[in-house]
Amino acid sequence: MVNSIKIQVLEQMEVIKRGVVEIIPEIELENKIYRSIKENKPLRIKLGLDPTAPDIHLGHTVVLNKLRQFQDLGHEVHLIIGDFTARIGDPSGKSETRKQLTAEQVEINSATYQEQIFKVLDREKTIIHFNSKWLQKMNLVDVLNLAGRYTVARMLERDDFSKRYKEGLPIGIHEFMYPLMQGYDSVELRSDVEMGGTDQTFNLLVGRNLQKEYDQEPQVALTMPILEGTDGVQKMSKSLGNYIGVNEDANEMFGKTMSITDELICRYFELLTRVPMSEINEMRAKMENGSLNPRDAKVKLAKEIITIYHNKEEAEKAEERFNLVFSQKDIPEDIPEIEAELQEVWLPKFLLENGMVKSASDGKRMLQQGGVKINGEKYAEEDLVLEDRMVIQVGKRKFIKIIESK
Amino acid sequence: MVNSIKIQVLEQMEVIKRGVVEIIPEIELENKIYRSIKENKPLRIKLGLDPTAPDIHLGHTVVLNKLRQFQDLGHEVHLIIGDFTARIGDPSGKSETRKQLTAEQVEINSATYQEQIFKVLDREKTIIHFNSKWLQKMNLVDVLNLAGRYTVARMLERDDFSKRYKEGLPIGIHEFMYPLMQGYDSVELRSDVEMGGTDQTFNLLVGRNLQKEYDQEPQVALTMPILEGTDGVQKMSKSLGNYIGVNEDANEMFGKTMSITDELICRYFELLTRVPMSEINEMRAKMENGSLNPRDAKVKLAKEIITIYHNKEEAEKAEERFNLVFSQKDIPEDIPEIEAELQEVWLPKFLLENGMVKSASDGKRMLQQGGVKINGEKYAEEDLVLEDRMVIQVGKRKFIKIIESK
Repeated sequence: MVNSIKIQVLEQMEVIKRGVVEIIPEIELENKIYRSIKENKPLRIKLGLDPTAPDIHLGHTVVLNKLRQFQDLGHEVHLIIGDFTARIGDPSGKSETRKQLTAEQVEINSATYQEQIFKVLDREKTIIHFNSKWLQKMNLVDVLNLAGRYTVARMLERDDFSKRYKEGLPIGIHEFMYPLMQGYDSVELRSDVEMGGTDQTFNLLVGRNLQKEYDQEPQVALTMPILEGTDGVQKMSKSLGNYIGVNEDANEMFGKTMSITDELICRYFELLTRVPMSEINEMRAKMENGSLNPRDAKVKLAKEIITIYHNKEEAEKAEERFNLVFSQKDIPEDIPEIEAELQEVWLPKFLLENGMVKSASDGKRMLQQGGVKINGEKYAEEDLVLEDRMVIQVGKRKFIKIIESK
Repeated sequence: MVNSIKIQVLEQMEVIKRGVVEIIPEIELENKIYRSIKENKPLRIKLGLDPTAPDIHLGHTVVLNKLRQFQDLGHEVHLIIGDFTARIGDPSGKSETRKQLTAEQVEINSATYQEQIFKVLDREKTIIHFNSKWLQKMNLVDVLNLAGRYTVARMLERDDFSKRYKEGLPIGIHEFMYPLMQGYDSVELRSDVEMGGTDQTFNLLVGRNLQKEYDQEPQVALTMPILEGTDGVQKMSKSLGNYIGVNEDANEMFGKTMSITDELICRYFELLTRVPMSEINEMRAKMENGSLNPRDAKVKLAKEIITIYHNKEEAEKAEERFNLVFSQKDIPEDIPEIEAELQEVWLPKFLLENGMVKSASDGKRMLQQGGVKINGEKYAEEDLVLEDRMVIQVGKRKFIKIIESK
């Protein structure tokens, strides 16, 4: 019996360790899982969410996928919506980054979040908390009590604080309170595990230490990598434009996935899909020895991703469309992209403005002669409603791709 | 008219500057006094009091005397009883020094304080505040708002923090809140001047800076020296035993004042009495050229102090008694002091134990032969109830003075 539990622990650990950067400390997680199985009691896995930026892209799902794996292993996910801090913004009024939201905005953002998050998470095994529930009850005595559990020196060890302190850049004393508040959420929640990106390691450990201070069994800190964007260089981020949003349509997801660098293929499989590691490793080997074309691996990746956020049928359709537009119609893959508003344009002028014809009358003639193709199909009308990722071809060699301007 | 106000400002400044270490900044104090005279509106002078240690000695009166001078110039004194912090003690439970008091203890201590303080201050021009009035209403948002007004680097500039940080000694984050809370008291009070010992300079400036942050005219920080104790070396402190308490009786005050080192005489006059500076400077000159015996200056000092805390008659009586015991009975002034409990003793054994006789029977014989004097008077009985500062003499040369053991 005991041995059988141990085997189950090892099985769970194998799933949990996929793609993880650090488990601090691993032995405690094993012990927690052992007890969870023995007592048939799910672990409480915590994730904090900032309701100021509710648009989720695949970078965020690295952590969500891990939470889903915990759920599939029988554990409970506790999402903490940081509405308290969002409601107050930056009280010193000195930070541009800490936006202040109204109660209504928090509610809307929180709904947006949930709509997206439950594409990954199991709604039945997810409990949502708003941290204002306990934080807004705190008075000065409670705050002093909390702040007294941590030292200035330990807080200054956090990378960004230590850097700013050394460089003589100001750190407001209230900023020391935010990690404590996040840590206090763990105390209120009695979480067993807190998840985050590697940039959250310090904060997760504050929660762990505070739980000890409040005589609780400390949470395990589990960190996931920060996902590179489609450019393969910088982290995936909306502002850098190298992201794939979970709310994007299947064709966009397909196209963007096909544009990633080859080095990212296996990493994306590991962190963003449920394809077994054995299969991923096999693909890696085959790409290395040349028996698998990275392009085909990317097609499989794109379809896996679309299946998660849409469904299998949409994945198939997106592949077909992509092949139609790019592969079968001799459209090259590296087409210059033109940002434009998605509105009706007078094509002769539009072609002129984008350097594809010499004059508007040249454009008119090309249209009449059947020299213009839209997404690989001949097009003869002078008016055209632009669409996102639409490919416009003039003659044999001139291509542009329309990207919706934001 | 304007010129006459300017003269009054100079007159006030002369009184205020007596004994002061720093006025930060002096020009602002002059401007405040100018406006106060012009608008016939008293300045609000703040002093914070810690209700955990309500026993006041002359060291504390250095600041109180300055407050009294402000009152005599027409200004208002605002005492802040730090009941909020006293009620919570050290919330981290790690400090031995920050005692936690009940509401009842705070009330008792505050009453004890007032009873002593009004020996110096003018009750009519004193307003007492308890800072729990505003601090206990603060919630986490208010705290973040307050903490956001100050940076970690600036707080770490405080001497004790910077020392502890450099030495790797822990500083609880809550400790950063205390100067902010003290500073916030100034905001609530809209104080014009905050007083303190030189060890308070940093905290007084926090109040000044916070007032600016809250768009108030900033207070002026005014610091007084830390008074040396009767030993002339260490600061006056109850725990060091070198103090003169304001509640001590006239004879004790007289004796202790006579025991101070000559170097302290003029400093005590300046900081502890209302004797004009011209007269003090004259005494200083006379002691330097030998035309005034320091002993006579000390007698005048002792009588001045007793007149403040008791009255003129008690001062005269204390002098007479002192002369009777010490001067007229050939008792030297530098007698070894023996700590003892104030109880009845069997004198032959007590004298033996303190090395004044060779044996108990030697002690008995001395008593019978009239060789023992108590406070200069012959004493023949074998039992004696010890009193504080009682002088016991055996033969012509052997003296001890009893000091109550604590």
